[in-house]
Amino acid sequence: MVKQEDFAVEQYMDAYETCIEYNMAETCTASISINEIPGQSQESLNQLQQKLFSTKLTYGHIRGSPELKNAIAQIYNDEGGNITKEDIVPTNGAIGANFLTLYALVDEGDKVIVVDPTYQQLASVSKVFSRNPGNVIPWRLNFENNYLPDLEELRKLINENHPKLLIINNPNNPTGVVWGDEIIREIVEICSQADIYILCDEVYRPLYHSTVDPPKSIVNYGYKKTISTSSTSKAFSLAGLRLGWVVTKDQEVIDKLYSKRDYNTISVSTLDDITGTYALTSYKQILERSYKICKTNLDILGKYIDNTPLLSWVKPQGGSTCFVKVNIEGIDTMKMCVDLVEQYKTLIVPGEVFGRRGYLRIGFGNNTEDIEKGLEQLTKYFVSNNYQ
Amino acid sequence: MVKQEDFAVEQYMDAYETCIEYNMAETCTASISINEIPGQSQESLNQLQQKLFSTKLTYGHIRGSPELKNAIAQIYNDEGGNITKEDIVPTNGAIGANFLTLYALVDEGDKVIVVDPTYQQLASVSKVFSRNPGNVIPWRLNFENNYLPDLEELRKLINENHPKLLIINNPNNPTGVVWGDEIIREIVEICSQADIYILCDEVYRPLYHSTVDPPKSIVNYGYKKTISTSSTSKAFSLAGLRLGWVVTKDQEVIDKLYSKRDYNTISVSTLDDITGTYALTSYKQILERSYKICKTNLDILGKYIDNTPLLSWVKPQGGSTCFVKVNIEGIDTMKMCVDLVEQYKTLIVPGEVFGRRGYLRIGFGNNTEDIEKGLEQLTKYFVSNNYQ
Repeated sequence: MVKQEDFAVEQYMDAYETCIEYNMAETCTASISINEIPGQSQESLNQLQQKLFSTKLTYGHIRGSPELKNAIAQIYNDEGGNITKEDIVPTNGAIGANFLTLYALVDEGDKVIVVDPTYQQLASVSKVFSRNPGNVIPWRLNFENNYLPDLEELRKLINENHPKLLIINNPNNPTGVVWGDEIIREIVEICSQADIYILCDEVYRPLYHSTVDPPKSIVNYGYKKTISTSSTSKAFSLAGLRLGWVVTKDQEVIDKLYSKRDYNTISVSTLDDITGTYALTSYKQILERSYKICKTNLDILGKYIDNTPLLSWVKPQGGSTCFVKVNIEGIDTMKMCVDLVEQYKTLIVPGEVFGRRGYLRIGFGNNTEDIEKGLEQLTKYFVSNNYQ
Repeated sequence: MVKQEDFAVEQYMDAYETCIEYNMAETCTASISINEIPGQSQESLNQLQQKLFSTKLTYGHIRGSPELKNAIAQIYNDEGGNITKEDIVPTNGAIGANFLTLYALVDEGDKVIVVDPTYQQLASVSKVFSRNPGNVIPWRLNFENNYLPDLEELRKLINENHPKLLIINNPNNPTGVVWGDEIIREIVEICSQADIYILCDEVYRPLYHSTVDPPKSIVNYGYKKTISTSSTSKAFSLAGLRLGWVVTKDQEVIDKLYSKRDYNTISVSTLDDITGTYALTSYKQILERSYKICKTNLDILGKYIDNTPLLSWVKPQGGSTCFVKVNIEGIDTMKMCVDLVEQYKTLIVPGEVFGRRGYLRIGFGNNTEDIEKGLEQLTKYFVSNNYQ
């Protein structure tokens, strides 16, 4: 098989996450417990407890409970979508949603265009199923262009490669860029004309902070061959549920997903299904909390970066991560980040794990104190290394 | 890619499970709720509730909590094993454990010997990762030989094919046969001499009903290249947890498993991790209940089959399924089972989904009433079709 490389960002986090004090690498908005899920009455909390403890733990609804799927559909339909239970496939997290989609859609020899940088899984698993790393073509975003897409480049890549699938990620991890409504419309138009699938990893949706024309979910643009993946992990602060989903109006894709899902999932956790349903019925209140945390942290980060000529950024408009450029000629950001861990107890993800030396990924959805103290450590690092 | 067929038994169950009254297809021992987990005090139940509701739902311990892994290790060590936390990889169910193992171990061109019949996933996913259906070689078991293995045949298959991996399933689904200690010793010896991995799907362990020399887990025979997969679903009556595991003393395999796991799992559900830990600390009490249910149902089934010349079986020594031979020349058991669903509201799995026409898989771990009433329906079917 195609030898699959290690998942760089996961391995990096795994190696260092437990030996630091200030975590500026976390990508989830600060996680909450069941007790802390906002917007619920004591009575509904009691009912949840009853249900969790008295439900027989069979495989449950193999395709996810109708209640869960209705709650997920609501998120899409509150922005004018027309998603039904039949359009939703629950999975173990967004990691499971992306994996399942690629397992179901990418066959030997299929070409796939993948936005770059993005979550490494999307390109790497495509390579496994397409059997040839050369079949996965990066569509590169650049700092200089504010991480916005070059649509002419996309047209060219499609014409040259005749891909089966385009994979994008909106809001984007690591950059925090949001491609707005107009851009998404154009991408859908281009792919629709070329008759190719679009998978949009929307796990950071709908976390928008300063977007002028927020996009709808990719499945809400009227083009059937679109697929949205997401989960409760990032915007909804509940990564511990391992509850993700694939949404598409393409029933042929749904059938393929369920066929493969028999081989690697069967069903999602009954406890997660029940708790996820409970949580998503107050998803707006959860989001409100997430917005506040991100705004506070973004303000702090923004002030720091504005006052630090050694750093520059494209201010993130969404999600909970940003990709900061280090203005030091030839800087080895991997070494810099390891030094930050070992000498300053501060975790930041080096751009190298996204194939971009000279950048830092900072997560701003987590504790404000970690950001404040972490930035102080960063200053100490710069001073002690005589960078200015 | 290798076009992967649908998962026949899952598709069959999916299609019919909801429109019947008597379920003789269920393979889990009758599932329980959290409240029904035996062997726990009210105080520990209260503590569980506290913990479930107050734990922040982060990704949790990426590699599973130490408490969970200790509880899993205990099952292996109570029979004299030497399993530590480092030897265990938690997954989403045994389906996830098998999938992850094959994803990590089977590369393009690798040959794999798979016992047949067995759970279809084991052969089918091996075909996907080995890239060629011809690389997956069935090692056939037969009714006439009581589903016991022909070790000469195994030696021959190994010599001819030089496989990387042997996959067995003990107790076996669908037959309920148990390969005892002596047989497993010999298989380990053969594979050890040939230096090949053994994956033993042990999801029905340790459900033994009438085994003279019960085998230990495959990882407890002192051969490093052995891998055990299992879960809370079958013997432990908690399929809704989606909590499985891979166990191996081979740290090179562990590293490969975690590398792939970053791409399709990240971590298991925090709620499942906590609840699974709670449940497995009283796994012996859960098993006691499972034994009782299986014994009651097996007695009923045994009497029926003894008195029904149209049927014969190799009485299952373990697990919760048996594979019953229908002594009717040329019988189309697929049609028979569909008739049983449509006309008699009774669900039995046809041998065809295991590639064996003329057989029926009956699950005996579930409700006794389903077995009793289902058998009455079976009699009606025979009578109305003039079989005798």
